[in-house]
Amino acid sequence: MQSAYRPIRVALLGAGSVGAQVARLLLENSEELAKRVGAELELSGIAVRDTKAKRSADLPAKLFTDDAESLILSSDIVIELIGGIEPARSWITLALNSGADVITANKALIAAHGPELLELAEQLGAQLYYEAAVGGAIPIIRPLRESLAGDRINRVMGIVNGTTNYILDQMESTGADFQDALSEAQELGYAEADPTADVEGFDAASKAAILASLAFHSEVAVEKVHREGITSVNALQIETARQAGYTVKLLAICERVGDGLVARVHPTLIPLSHPLAAVRGAYNAVFVEAESAGRLMFYGAGAGGPETASAVLGDLVSAAKRHLAGGPGISDSTHANLEALPVQRVNTRFQITLEVDDQPGVLASIAKEFASHGVSVETVAQSASSDGNNAALLTIMTHMANEGDLEELVAKLEKNASVLRVNSVIRVEGI
Amino acid sequence: MQSAYRPIRVALLGAGSVGAQVARLLLENSEELAKRVGAELELSGIAVRDTKAKRSADLPAKLFTDDAESLILSSDIVIELIGGIEPARSWITLALNSGADVITANKALIAAHGPELLELAEQLGAQLYYEAAVGGAIPIIRPLRESLAGDRINRVMGIVNGTTNYILDQMESTGADFQDALSEAQELGYAEADPTADVEGFDAASKAAILASLAFHSEVAVEKVHREGITSVNALQIETARQAGYTVKLLAICERVGDGLVARVHPTLIPLSHPLAAVRGAYNAVFVEAESAGRLMFYGAGAGGPETASAVLGDLVSAAKRHLAGGPGISDSTHANLEALPVQRVNTRFQITLEVDDQPGVLASIAKEFASHGVSVETVAQSASSDGNNAALLTIMTHMANEGDLEELVAKLEKNASVLRVNSVIRVEGI
Repeated sequence: MQSAYRPIRVALLGAGSVGAQVARLLLENSEELAKRVGAELELSGIAVRDTKAKRSADLPAKLFTDDAESLILSSDIVIELIGGIEPARSWITLALNSGADVITANKALIAAHGPELLELAEQLGAQLYYEAAVGGAIPIIRPLRESLAGDRINRVMGIVNGTTNYILDQMESTGADFQDALSEAQELGYAEADPTADVEGFDAASKAAILASLAFHSEVAVEKVHREGITSVNALQIETARQAGYTVKLLAICERVGDGLVARVHPTLIPLSHPLAAVRGAYNAVFVEAESAGRLMFYGAGAGGPETASAVLGDLVSAAKRHLAGGPGISDSTHANLEALPVQRVNTRFQITLEVDDQPGVLASIAKEFASHGVSVETVAQSASSDGNNAALLTIMTHMANEGDLEELVAKLEKNASVLRVNSVIRVEGI
Repeated sequence: MQSAYRPIRVALLGAGSVGAQVARLLLENSEELAKRVGAELELSGIAVRDTKAKRSADLPAKLFTDDAESLILSSDIVIELIGGIEPARSWITLALNSGADVITANKALIAAHGPELLELAEQLGAQLYYEAAVGGAIPIIRPLRESLAGDRINRVMGIVNGTTNYILDQMESTGADFQDALSEAQELGYAEADPTADVEGFDAASKAAILASLAFHSEVAVEKVHREGITSVNALQIETARQAGYTVKLLAICERVGDGLVARVHPTLIPLSHPLAAVRGAYNAVFVEAESAGRLMFYGAGAGGPETASAVLGDLVSAAKRHLAGGPGISDSTHANLEALPVQRVNTRFQITLEVDDQPGVLASIAKEFASHGVSVETVAQSASSDGNNAALLTIMTHMANEGDLEELVAKLEKNASVLRVNSVIRVEGI
């Protein structure tokens, strides 16, 4: 294509599944991209650790280099797809300092160092794009940053980890217990050999930190995110939830609380009629509650090479257009800087299951315990315990209650002589 | 707030429910908006036909004027919320010619004259924003135009009319017939006294034209959209669908077909497991299938004053930032200009219900008719007709078939001596 502009030089750092796909799309669709941008996008090189390693045959060998720094310094736009903190962080810093705009899909880096990198970009008049770092291909950053820029977001709830959503889905549809569903997910490649990052909620917590930063224009450190994984969710709990009209999802929830915000990740009961309940398998979704816009949801594949590559290319077109025309980019210099508060500040509903002595007066004594902690009970269902030990199983749904009050209540219940065991405590959202 | 910039003058045309809400938000949130934009947004006036009409008390009387043209000529950004074609079109043209950027929520105008107005804006270096014109508060234009700019969209399916979605929902949950559900929707204010624009699919067709233009970078005239409403959908059809694992939705579908595109609006069967099936009541959603990004969905309130106002304010913040910094806006000058083809070019599945003579050999003769038109049958279910007239009811689900072939087949079936009646023909999507 003829163009009034010299080609825009694009450097790629990393040639994993996403990197190779981005390179392929850049080469294959170069004409269409040039039309959309208004200038040619030239893939100036692909930085890899070992240039001798075997590559997919469709990428020209001459593009590969192990000299990332020279490549960065000779490019207009740098796409970082190597993952991890170092050298990604140093290379992005070098790129921004050299005047390049940067695109990254690196959620660990953005969760840990996003605010400082965004601030550096702002000082230098450069842009840092990271749509692919949260929710894979789901466009969530532009809607949160731009479309809702004149609104006030009160709450964001996301299914942001495909592995755990797949496992919970399997548990629900087959009645399998956690370990069996995990093993199956590992065999199918949906879960890694060491599944800790997924099943303990670390990955979701990184994304919660990014979502909270985006929604509330505030810096949220990942350490401030309350985190519970799904390892203690069992088949009985899921079955009980289903019968009561609920499903169990691992949610990342970020919400305004007073003058601050709380970000948290934990298994959650949501009603089957809630849009998030229909998000199955490895899909992701982000549900937003805004003052004027009301309830919104963004749904799509949360991971995968082609899907993430699509998000990277969307950022690339934006970056390239801005490179030509100047003007405001996707980053947002406004910091409301709401303080990240502890989870004890949250008010929500809870479902609590208890094994108690099946004796007259026990229910009254437990109800009194709830009342004395200011936790109001909505419903109580009593059934015989499956252990056949003259115990009864109580399933209690509360009204809105304070998380801190509830913690104290549960500690008290555990010491109550009539309570044999607190089986589970799970938060309920989306009613 | 102190700022290096003079205030940005914002004119509002129209003070209906959306207009009044936009004015209110502009006045109430002026400090926060100024922070986000980097300059003050000054509501310079509100053009109305009758300045003496009763207004809500919270809007200062001095803002109202009946001299729209003077107001437009003295403003940096013009927000058009009067609806209809004229004078909206002339005023938007005047605003663009005067150098102002324009924001509109006017879907009738964008569907009828969007391409020419966008081209005018482009020639003048101005911007025309219309996020609120399609899908109410759902951010759909930025995702389609920007986030997926490096991808290839193959198909868009939307529930874009809340009234019909509410009626179909009521029919499904209560077993009511169309007329009863419509009457109830009218009593509740979900449907207008003259419901034609909604129930006959005209409103959805306007939105389909806009979605097709956006997704395929092509001009699509609303007259090219194939349109069928929901007036012929009956309770039995919905019940039969439900039993087979489907729900009936009025969908706006835009897809690539060969080198062109087809846009169509009609009642559609979709599997209950499809994300669009979970879109209930007056909510809207747009489901996108892209080459790399896969399946995406955007969900939210499709209409309503506050929701539409949120989308308008999002556009306003974008327009104001661009007003300060210059650079690329939301509009897209790239036109692929795929041709809008007739619906007969589409391939899809169909469910056909027929009343036939309950005689030996009839099924064979009908199966032969299908085969001779190249329509392959997936399943046939036979049941006794409720009329008790020695007739059988056949419910036939086809494999993928060409719409044109199917039309010929149905014409032939209607003349077949063994066929008493073709009860219904409905397309099936999302499998």
